[in-house]
Amino acid sequence: MTTFGRLFVPDSLRAAVSDEAWLAAMLDAERALAQATGDEEAAEACRPELYDIEQLCEEGRADGNPVVPLARALRERAPGAHRGATSQDILDTAAMLVVRDARALVIGELDGAAAACASLAERHRATPMAARTLLQQAAPVTFGLTAAGWLVGLVDARQRLAAVRLPAQLGGPVGSIDPQVTAAFAAAIGLEEPVVPWHVHRRPVAELGAALAAAAAACAKVGLDVVLLAQTEVGEVSEAAPGGSSSMPHKRNPAAAVLARSCSRLVHAVAGVLTSGEHEHERAAGAWQAEWPALSAALAFAGGAAAAIRRSLEGLEVHADRMRTNVAVEPLSGQDPEALVDRALARYRAEAR
Amino acid sequence: MTTFGRLFVPDSLRAAVSDEAWLAAMLDAERALAQATGDEEAAEACRPELYDIEQLCEEGRADGNPVVPLARALRERAPGAHRGATSQDILDTAAMLVVRDARALVIGELDGAAAACASLAERHRATPMAARTLLQQAAPVTFGLTAAGWLVGLVDARQRLAAVRLPAQLGGPVGSIDPQVTAAFAAAIGLEEPVVPWHVHRRPVAELGAALAAAAAACAKVGLDVVLLAQTEVGEVSEAAPGGSSSMPHKRNPAAAVLARSCSRLVHAVAGVLTSGEHEHERAAGAWQAEWPALSAALAFAGGAAAAIRRSLEGLEVHADRMRTNVAVEPLSGQDPEALVDRALARYRAEAR
Amino acid sequence: MTTFGRLFVPDSLRAAVSDEAWLAAMLDAERALAQATGDEEAAEACRPELYDIEQLCEEGRADGNPVVPLARALRERAPGAHRGATSQDILDTAAMLVVRDARALVIGELDGAAAACASLAERHRATPMAARTLLQQAAPVTFGLTAAGWLVGLVDARQRLAAVRLPAQLGGPVGSIDPQVTAAFAAAIGLEEPVVPWHVHRRPVAELGAALAAAAAACAKVGLDVVLLAQTEVGEVSEAAPGGSSSMPHKRNPAAAVLARSCSRLVHAVAGVLTSGEHEHERAAGAWQAEWPALSAALAFAGGAAAAIRRSLEGLEVHADRMRTNVAVEPLSGQDPEALVDRALARYRAEAR
Amino acid sequence: MTTFGRLFVPDSLRAAVSDEAWLAAMLDAERALAQATGDEEAAEACRPELYDIEQLCEEGRADGNPVVPLARALRERAPGAHRGATSQDILDTAAMLVVRDARALVIGELDGAAAACASLAERHRATPMAARTLLQQAAPVTFGLTAAGWLVGLVDARQRLAAVRLPAQLGGPVGSIDPQVTAAFAAAIGLEEPVVPWHVHRRPVAELGAALAAAAAACAKVGLDVVLLAQTEVGEVSEAAPGGSSSMPHKRNPAAAVLARSCSRLVHAVAGVLTSGEHEHERAAGAWQAEWPALSAALAFAGGAAAAIRRSLEGLEVHADRMRTNVAVEPLSGQDPEALVDRALARYRAEAR
Repeated sequence: MTTFGRLFVPDSLRAAVSDEAWLAAMLDAERALAQATGDEEAAEACRPELYDIEQLCEEGRADGNPVVPLARALRERAPGAHRGATSQDILDTAAMLVVRDARALVIGELDGAAAACASLAERHRATPMAARTLLQQAAPVTFGLTAAGWLVGLVDARQRLAAVRLPAQLGGPVGSIDPQVTAAFAAAIGLEEPVVPWHVHRRPVAELGAALAAAAAACAKVGLDVVLLAQTEVGEVSEAAPGGSSSMPHKRNPAAAVLARSCSRLVHAVAGVLTSGEHEHERAAGAWQAEWPALSAALAFAGGAAAAIRRSLEGLEVHADRMRTNVAVEPLSGQDPEALVDRALARYRAEAR
Repeated sequence: MTTFGRLFVPDSLRAAVSDEAWLAAMLDAERALAQATGDEEAAEACRPELYDIEQLCEEGRADGNPVVPLARALRERAPGAHRGATSQDILDTAAMLVVRDARALVIGELDGAAAACASLAERHRATPMAARTLLQQAAPVTFGLTAAGWLVGLVDARQRLAAVRLPAQLGGPVGSIDPQVTAAFAAAIGLEEPVVPWHVHRRPVAELGAALAAAAAACAKVGLDVVLLAQTEVGEVSEAAPGGSSSMPHKRNPAAAVLARSCSRLVHAVAGVLTSGEHEHERAAGAWQAEWPALSAALAFAGGAAAAIRRSLEGLEVHADRMRTNVAVEPLSGQDPEALVDRALARYRAEAR
Repeated sequence: MTTFGRLFVPDSLRAAVSDEAWLAAMLDAERALAQATGDEEAAEACRPELYDIEQLCEEGRADGNPVVPLARALRERAPGAHRGATSQDILDTAAMLVVRDARALVIGELDGAAAACASLAERHRATPMAARTLLQQAAPVTFGLTAAGWLVGLVDARQRLAAVRLPAQLGGPVGSIDPQVTAAFAAAIGLEEPVVPWHVHRRPVAELGAALAAAAAACAKVGLDVVLLAQTEVGEVSEAAPGGSSSMPHKRNPAAAVLARSCSRLVHAVAGVLTSGEHEHERAAGAWQAEWPALSAALAFAGGAAAAIRRSLEGLEVHADRMRTNVAVEPLSGQDPEALVDRALARYRAEAR
Repeated sequence: MTTFGRLFVPDSLRAAVSDEAWLAAMLDAERALAQATGDEEAAEACRPELYDIEQLCEEGRADGNPVVPLARALRERAPGAHRGATSQDILDTAAMLVVRDARALVIGELDGAAAACASLAERHRATPMAARTLLQQAAPVTFGLTAAGWLVGLVDARQRLAAVRLPAQLGGPVGSIDPQVTAAFAAAIGLEEPVVPWHVHRRPVAELGAALAAAAAACAKVGLDVVLLAQTEVGEVSEAAPGGSSSMPHKRNPAAAVLARSCSRLVHAVAGVLTSGEHEHERAAGAWQAEWPALSAALAFAGGAAAAIRRSLEGLEVHADRMRTNVAVEPLSGQDPEALVDRALARYRAEAR
């Protein structure tokens, strides 16, 4: 259903949010549960090669989630498996594990994009260029300042995404489990211990939705500017590996910037599923289930946006001459774009440390 | 990226919106183009088994769409292939072909759900039940009226979805192709001839987005009511094959209604990508590309919603005794729920004819 | 709460969706109800000057809608007032009346914008200009073709909006009222008779949401192109009354196109409230109430988008020389932009008749 | 355009986001600018009673924002007014001032709601009640645990909203102003100093959108549960001042919880305008302007949601007997709801300190 997924999303990230990755994460959660209760037989049953996620999904259609058949299958091997947990505990904890791995990939792409921006900002700290407000030339600035603005956006977004806390979820069937059990489970799985179970209080999911949308927006801002600066009539930047056309050999399209923008739209669309928050009583009848595809899609397309904008930036050709000759407006007094570049770079370096 | 897709979406529909289906549709478009220009060699090259969509997507990342490498590959076999067209012509036409097939499946599920509703409305035309406003008992109606309301919603949604027009797209590189060529192409591919090319005027896509959202909403309304009526304390309906729980053997969850609601949320989320409409100049730099995954997802989850609600309705157990004893409010004068049931059934039969 | 409303929305449209307009429409609904039952005293009590909408809203906070206190106030004057109806009947019918009047204003603005487009398409049917795909020059077309594309978009959107059916709502407290009563009421109020009451089957509202979003999108497409064509480096169009700047006297901003785009964003945001559709049982506990501000805002900003783009188009200065000299690409064979302009104009004239 | 605003939003909050409040905030920004440059004449001209926001909006339509005519009017009184700033500086800074005041009101309502929750959690720490998953009874918990879950949600949301940083914006016409000037301005106006101007890097606005959506979601979760628990067939809570009906005297509707849910929907709808982030070059041509109404609406409806849920909670009648007799499921072992209540209360008290 994710049409042309490989075109939008890096292979490693596709793998990190694949059904196989979710299955492995669910089994990691079951294993930690077994370990927390000292059930070695159950822990031993948690090997992914023993289960087929496609079949679990088919069976799970009747139950409304894939953990019910998975728990059945686990118990056939180890009767004590899944004890104390409910399907949501396993799925929510698995979601956090999937996020932990996939987020690292998204952050890696954001870091690459930020490094490329920082390099552009430094190299072009004093390269004159026209600033445009409402797409009309307004006054000269420098391309370094433009890149510095992008940089701050990417650094902010990276910081925010990295700061989202990933708690374990173990509440038992109705969310009232003894919190000491949850603490042991959280320690075993290597996730944060929550104040109370969050089965119907979805702050962690909503924070991820917002942070992934912010990351995508930071990439889309760069993509938008690159597309505009690369216009034939502006010609101030071009991508190192522009896209071709199926019908016009002369075309040199800023394809990476375009893909970043399209990925961002998709992230924003699915993020709404993650932030709306109305979950009934002790388990939601619809709002929870919709999170699974939305979370994977938000991670995938956020990473797609970051990877694309990184490609665009890493090889960005800056046509400083054209920037200079394009300037059709008078300079203003009281400006100091280079001081602002320095501030942005200092922020970047402080954050990167 | 569509996590647990098989749980949400019927297999036939998953196939209908798969990358393989998109590839076949793109080749159908290329073949019709070749036929319209009498290029048999090019038509012959349009066999799906010759191409690998995964590889086309990987190559297409550089160009921003999978048709650029596909056209390259076609031309290696038949130099005249793709002549006159641009990549968007092929992709947009392919999208309409994918929609044609997938929509038929969605409509089939809606029809099944409507038939089940009609049967419930007839059987329970006079079964007394409490109406609830703001979830408080208000006055008695009949369950037939409740089912009749669902029926009208489903029939409206089906009618609307079936009415969306699917035009061919052939505008050439910039949308200025001789309209006679477009007419011949539309006839060859079996789609409508548009007034002018719609490469950046996305009414067909926006209409689909709105119609799929409406279909999902009609299913979600039924799902919401089923979930509420199936509550332990209400107990007026139950699903024939309720979902089990991984931790509590006594649970009988209305899992199909729940899945319908979750699918509907996902449709509404991605529909926004299809209706926003800002496409730059003669080809959009982001808004167009985002449509591909969004369109597949909207079709898939709309069909998932319809299939789930059909399952829920086809075996719905109606506990007429409980409905009767639950009524805690006085009847109103001047009501005629049975006349309304008749009107709904007449509408349904007129539409179905 | 609609910050700077006068800047975005024409005064007549602001009045048409004001609280005073809603109050008048609610009283029109109450009056038609009284007339349908022959209660002259109640009909006489339905004079807007007798009621204060601000006070009704304050009182209505406790009840969750303004009709409960309005019905109370009506009954103090005429004990038979509001008989047979529920508050939702009055509010939903009033909404359709508000829509009827406000939609006419939106359509008027769309008509003006379409007429301006048609005139541009005719005048510039053969004016050469570069087409741009992914914002890169691709091949020459004519500005007439560009304007013709806009025109088709606006005509489609106008047609769709005008086609939305506006039914009366009268279902009584639980939606089971004798349909003959509804028929008489619909005739008295001058709205369509629905098949069954639509209190929780919100097709009319969802259709409006979709149609207003489509209208806004058509305007935003023009706005986007105007903003791009007006760029300093492109310079192919300018607005007759460009916006000034508070700091740079030389700026000539395409302010009307900008406002059209901002209004469109707002329409798309609130349209989601109108299309989501999950309304519980016989009256929704939240989804219904949220429609009131969303419907007014969707109408207002759709009209704002149309009015702004009309202003932009009516005085659009087309710099044909600059268009000609900007062209940096070779013509293609097999194109016929003028034939497409003719098709668009024929469609426009057929629709306008 | 905000239909029935008084019904949804407290009067003080309506005032805090009114056009008059925006005008006062814009003049505060102009005054701080004048003070930072020592221009007493300009500072003196910044008295709200000298300007008419309705007229400024009408004039501002031509320029695309109300600051251009405001700056003109200021300069007529004091030629040095607005020196160094651009309209976006004034509007963005004014937005932060409006947010500062309105947010305090939203937080006040959240605090009231949290206090009521804490009191319920304490009083009912051990009151048995059925937990419901997928709306089916699952196992007993306590009402104290339910209230504790709500409490954590509200405390999280409050903390997040209060943590959003509000920076001054002063970048000059193109965002390249000497950062020392910005620092002086930020100090004068009492807002944070940003790293670089954020005219097109909208993190502050996006954070507000996300935080207001999270606040609304926390309120909506409570509202949803209250509506479900207040159902006739459940009867476990009722609002102290339930809403009446215009047609059925016996109805006791949980009107405050319903309004909270409707407000939350509206916040989520407009929040999308605040988080999408694509702002062109040095000033956005549409995305920026759309923020003004969206920001006011998000603040207003978030406060409306919080105020409504506070009303609902402060007088919530808890029917402990009904809770007890409703329980139709067996207790589970290994649960400790009271320990979880303690954790939630400890968190609340730590945060409140």
